[in-house]
Amino acid sequence: MNSKIKVGIVGATGYTGVELLRLLSSHPNIEITTVTSRSESGKAVSDYFPSLRGIYDLTFQTPEHAGLEKCDIVFFATPNGIAMNDAPRLLEKGIRIVDLSADFRIQDISTWEHWYKMKHASPDIVPQAVYGLSELNRDAIASAQIVANPGCYPTCVSLPLLPMLKEGRLKPHMPLIADCKSGVSGAGRKANTGSLLCEAGDNFKAYGITGHRHQPEIRQTIATLQPGIAEHFIFVPHLTPMIRGMHATLYLHLEDGCNPEAVLREFYRDSPFVDIMPAGSTPETRSVRGANLCRISIQKSSSDNVWIALSVIDNLVKGAAGQAVQNMNIMFGFDEKLGLIQTPLLP
Amino acid sequence: MNSKIKVGIVGATGYTGVELLRLLSSHPNIEITTVTSRSESGKAVSDYFPSLRGIYDLTFQTPEHAGLEKCDIVFFATPNGIAMNDAPRLLEKGIRIVDLSADFRIQDISTWEHWYKMKHASPDIVPQAVYGLSELNRDAIASAQIVANPGCYPTCVSLPLLPMLKEGRLKPHMPLIADCKSGVSGAGRKANTGSLLCEAGDNFKAYGITGHRHQPEIRQTIATLQPGIAEHFIFVPHLTPMIRGMHATLYLHLEDGCNPEAVLREFYRDSPFVDIMPAGSTPETRSVRGANLCRISIQKSSSDNVWIALSVIDNLVKGAAGQAVQNMNIMFGFDEKLGLIQTPLLP
Amino acid sequence: MNSKIKVGIVGATGYTGVELLRLLSSHPNIEITTVTSRSESGKAVSDYFPSLRGIYDLTFQTPEHAGLEKCDIVFFATPNGIAMNDAPRLLEKGIRIVDLSADFRIQDISTWEHWYKMKHASPDIVPQAVYGLSELNRDAIASAQIVANPGCYPTCVSLPLLPMLKEGRLKPHMPLIADCKSGVSGAGRKANTGSLLCEAGDNFKAYGITGHRHQPEIRQTIATLQPGIAEHFIFVPHLTPMIRGMHATLYLHLEDGCNPEAVLREFYRDSPFVDIMPAGSTPETRSVRGANLCRISIQKSSSDNVWIALSVIDNLVKGAAGQAVQNMNIMFGFDEKLGLIQTPLLP
Amino acid sequence: MNSKIKVGIVGATGYTGVELLRLLSSHPNIEITTVTSRSESGKAVSDYFPSLRGIYDLTFQTPEHAGLEKCDIVFFATPNGIAMNDAPRLLEKGIRIVDLSADFRIQDISTWEHWYKMKHASPDIVPQAVYGLSELNRDAIASAQIVANPGCYPTCVSLPLLPMLKEGRLKPHMPLIADCKSGVSGAGRKANTGSLLCEAGDNFKAYGITGHRHQPEIRQTIATLQPGIAEHFIFVPHLTPMIRGMHATLYLHLEDGCNPEAVLREFYRDSPFVDIMPAGSTPETRSVRGANLCRISIQKSSSDNVWIALSVIDNLVKGAAGQAVQNMNIMFGFDEKLGLIQTPLLP
Repeated sequence: MNSKIKVGIVGATGYTGVELLRLLSSHPNIEITTVTSRSESGKAVSDYFPSLRGIYDLTFQTPEHAGLEKCDIVFFATPNGIAMNDAPRLLEKGIRIVDLSADFRIQDISTWEHWYKMKHASPDIVPQAVYGLSELNRDAIASAQIVANPGCYPTCVSLPLLPMLKEGRLKPHMPLIADCKSGVSGAGRKANTGSLLCEAGDNFKAYGITGHRHQPEIRQTIATLQPGIAEHFIFVPHLTPMIRGMHATLYLHLEDGCNPEAVLREFYRDSPFVDIMPAGSTPETRSVRGANLCRISIQKSSSDNVWIALSVIDNLVKGAAGQAVQNMNIMFGFDEKLGLIQTPLLP
Repeated sequence: MNSKIKVGIVGATGYTGVELLRLLSSHPNIEITTVTSRSESGKAVSDYFPSLRGIYDLTFQTPEHAGLEKCDIVFFATPNGIAMNDAPRLLEKGIRIVDLSADFRIQDISTWEHWYKMKHASPDIVPQAVYGLSELNRDAIASAQIVANPGCYPTCVSLPLLPMLKEGRLKPHMPLIADCKSGVSGAGRKANTGSLLCEAGDNFKAYGITGHRHQPEIRQTIATLQPGIAEHFIFVPHLTPMIRGMHATLYLHLEDGCNPEAVLREFYRDSPFVDIMPAGSTPETRSVRGANLCRISIQKSSSDNVWIALSVIDNLVKGAAGQAVQNMNIMFGFDEKLGLIQTPLLP
Repeated sequence: MNSKIKVGIVGATGYTGVELLRLLSSHPNIEITTVTSRSESGKAVSDYFPSLRGIYDLTFQTPEHAGLEKCDIVFFATPNGIAMNDAPRLLEKGIRIVDLSADFRIQDISTWEHWYKMKHASPDIVPQAVYGLSELNRDAIASAQIVANPGCYPTCVSLPLLPMLKEGRLKPHMPLIADCKSGVSGAGRKANTGSLLCEAGDNFKAYGITGHRHQPEIRQTIATLQPGIAEHFIFVPHLTPMIRGMHATLYLHLEDGCNPEAVLREFYRDSPFVDIMPAGSTPETRSVRGANLCRISIQKSSSDNVWIALSVIDNLVKGAAGQAVQNMNIMFGFDEKLGLIQTPLLP
Repeated sequence: MNSKIKVGIVGATGYTGVELLRLLSSHPNIEITTVTSRSESGKAVSDYFPSLRGIYDLTFQTPEHAGLEKCDIVFFATPNGIAMNDAPRLLEKGIRIVDLSADFRIQDISTWEHWYKMKHASPDIVPQAVYGLSELNRDAIASAQIVANPGCYPTCVSLPLLPMLKEGRLKPHMPLIADCKSGVSGAGRKANTGSLLCEAGDNFKAYGITGHRHQPEIRQTIATLQPGIAEHFIFVPHLTPMIRGMHATLYLHLEDGCNPEAVLREFYRDSPFVDIMPAGSTPETRSVRGANLCRISIQKSSSDNVWIALSVIDNLVKGAAGQAVQNMNIMFGFDEKLGLIQTPLLP
């Protein structure tokens, strides 16, 4: 291939950064030209992440001196609040962006500012940012200059809901409950006490019970697809003592006569990264470990009209870096599966 | 104390058995005279469980030669289907029993036989067995000759529900959802593939989605307290990669004007082993590790009239051996807290 | 590719089996035509291992009806004692074999029978079996009809030793200590109590202190390379609560003037799967998770002439299935790296 | 008991602090009057550690306003460098001290300053500080005003060595190797990246290979007991993915004719917290989880004159808070076992 696209990664020292580096290492159509980190600038990537020894010959650079403007696409794997400042300069130069942070996910600026507790630096760019739930917005992503990569919970919760919402099959005015469980890597690689092995290990708890930032993101998706549902959406995240993986247990009130498994199969017929399992299946998180996959099953509960949908992803892959690569593939007209054919690591 | 009661444990090689031995090692009013195991008979308890070296000088015996009939109380820490055969002989001799298996938990024999897939050997004894949810049935337990110790899920789910059910505060005809998460020790110590570290570790999944044996047990409790609720009870258990601990997330539709936290505080005012935490709290399983405690919080969800109750126990303590000791204390008129003042092990 | 080689896997329901399936799924030159399992015959591979849904359209067959004789190469991922019975029939038909069990690893039959506690069924075939430590025996492997794939401990311990032994740099008559730590997957997928999450989790212990089967295998390698060392080899394996990964800490008495890091670098200059790290490095098991790699560092201890070598592998990859694929590549003249370019999964 | 001694804990927000609080909650002869924390002053202990809800009615105070001078004994559960500043003021007032940090463990000031990289604030007090390895220094501890509680590694390594060193049974000029493995709680509760569940979980590695602070502490103990050994002591610590627990594997060259198991049994005959297991045993860390115990076994290796000793402790109990309470018991003439009769938590 004599015309690989040039890829830059901003903020590559966290878990989404190293996961992008892992996934892109097997992508035939790209070349990583730039990885940035303020704190580690000058350090070899393979010294910082020994898992990448022998794979990359790259050195972290400060964003200013990284030559990001020579890239075809830049991934932001940064904390919230960075991309919204840096994106305009790159977009002006025609560089395309996939932002893995939350900066461009929410269209309503005041909602975003309420939940993220800062002033948005680029509200004018938000309307052109396409929400990068690949299976929902493929066409818009293809032509987008900037893609807002979804959060992990929103991906895991939305994928089983999309088809039913699109067809208006959820009963309005009834609660829609998402009881979600995440591995600890969802909290990122920053050193906070709650993510210590001795705090999060051998322990289970709910958190964010009074309000989690992914709730408005999911509500936004619901609201655009079926009215009368979003305001009854209940979201309870839990922390489970494992590294990767996310599991959503959804309790849905469906209209009579709906065959949700058939609806799901039809909707995802041409989606290589969504696997609809037979009713009665219980997808497990390790069955997608390291792979850009969402596995879903749906079955009737023991109470009339309440259905139970189970959904699993690897929060760092389909919930972050994998979906980002999938979106890049769509943006550049590549086969959607390029670089994403990892067989899950089990055990 | 010159008149310690004599205690026997049948089937002491599993996790509830070793946990009984741990808890009873600090109980001032009892003496363990007999521990039985068919497979390990003749072996010293402290060779089998090195954690008990220096604490017990006991040898496993076969049940037939164990002299159980000389005990004041016998705990059955056996698989289902054993106690129902052995109990009658002991009851005849006036020996009191706490059965930690499921044999006497369900009053309706055909329901029991349906879920446990065997014929009940002692249906005539079932009516006199008192369901050993200590905080619900203290008085009946005090005078019972045989107590059916509750399952772990039923304990964790029922404790936050009891007060509301007793006062009829749940809205009928609305779903009552219990999304539960258990550590792996709930599956016991038998060697099955699903409980291997390499299968259950770093993994999260639902199971028993088409029907779990603890569902009819919980429904029985609900049905006796408030009509119109049990048939809408939905129970989804999940397996989480930790050793001990159980977490229930309950979604309740409550009547208008109910102050559930106040109801809980009032109901459990004199219960030393139930801790009602302030609304907004997220009890974590490790905060009860090794202790006979249930910690509960309740708060309004973001959707009208739906409340979220969180409940945690150590499945081997308040969910099994600890509650069994608590019941023994009640049966013999001891202080309910004797032998049960463990401070949780954290981290 | 119009001439992929045909691959069969015997006993594909264990961890080395599923790992072979994972690795071979990305190998361009092969086609898996047969997977066998007595217990699961008739079941789809993707039902048994949900991680493989969408990747393989294969059904387990009994070995007798599997058509193994049409394969170009057969991997035995079976318990010890199977391959020695089945190999002769396949070898006669010109089919090449990589045996991942221990049946052909030890040349001295009486030693093998002593440690494996059974009579060897094919002692006549043992002499032609090449010990498949790829970096030691590349040439012999290339022309071998049957390769005895090494154990995980022998791989992890031997790789740092080989270069020093070949050059005779170890001091004779001094102890050579290998203090080794293995993840639990090394015990395989069989349901034994010691591998339960609740037994092996949050726990650390030595085992096999009175003699482990991998000791004679390592001694055999040592003895063929430098005399006077093997009899002073001390091997203590430990079980560490993780799924994959193996770590060897070696204490070596080296001759004066030896620069072991230079010796290692020189020896492994052309070996893509051995990474010599700078002195002072502490290779961690996760830096090779899922990858066919051994990372090694060596440094002087605080006591004269004693050196400390650290070595890590993924026990299921370089310690089993990965090395088996590497050996297949060597046997068929493929690029040694084909199908083995996984970037380690971190975190 | 109408005259409980008054106990203060300085720096009670870390793991040794909460473990002291757990252990002391069952001690009949003491009353905790003061717990200090600069960062959490004003907060209830039971809000900070929910595991202690219902057990303590204490509030963190700043050290200055805590009234430490009214205590009979003060435990320092602080980072290194605090106790050496605060101890003189308390000692002057006759208050006794157990320092769980490293400030008073090393008698040679320049050695201490070299390893701890700070100037010692109270070199004049160091000579009167008794090294609190209870089984070594019982008599001196009994009359000490200040006890330097040993580190976790030094406790785990020294206990199996003491008897042999005292009798001069180690061969001089031969390496004495301690290959040690620690759970992550040994690193404390501070938020550093290396202790995150996603970094330390499912991983194994050596660390401190170029020098660990516990090495000079162990060497000091060795040097006082048998000459010619300390300089050949090699110490390699490893991090294992579990919360509590420490395992030492020692490789000893013993003089001919030594029966080390008998030596150990004799030496520890009257020590309730050291358990000598039969040769061939492999003590596991969980067999001491939560308990003030060291379990030891010793056996001959397969190489002449090299013996393998295995030693396990709970690093937070016998390796820290438990030994501190044991020392307090000795200092005040209490039964050495008071408050320390926890049965290990298994599973």
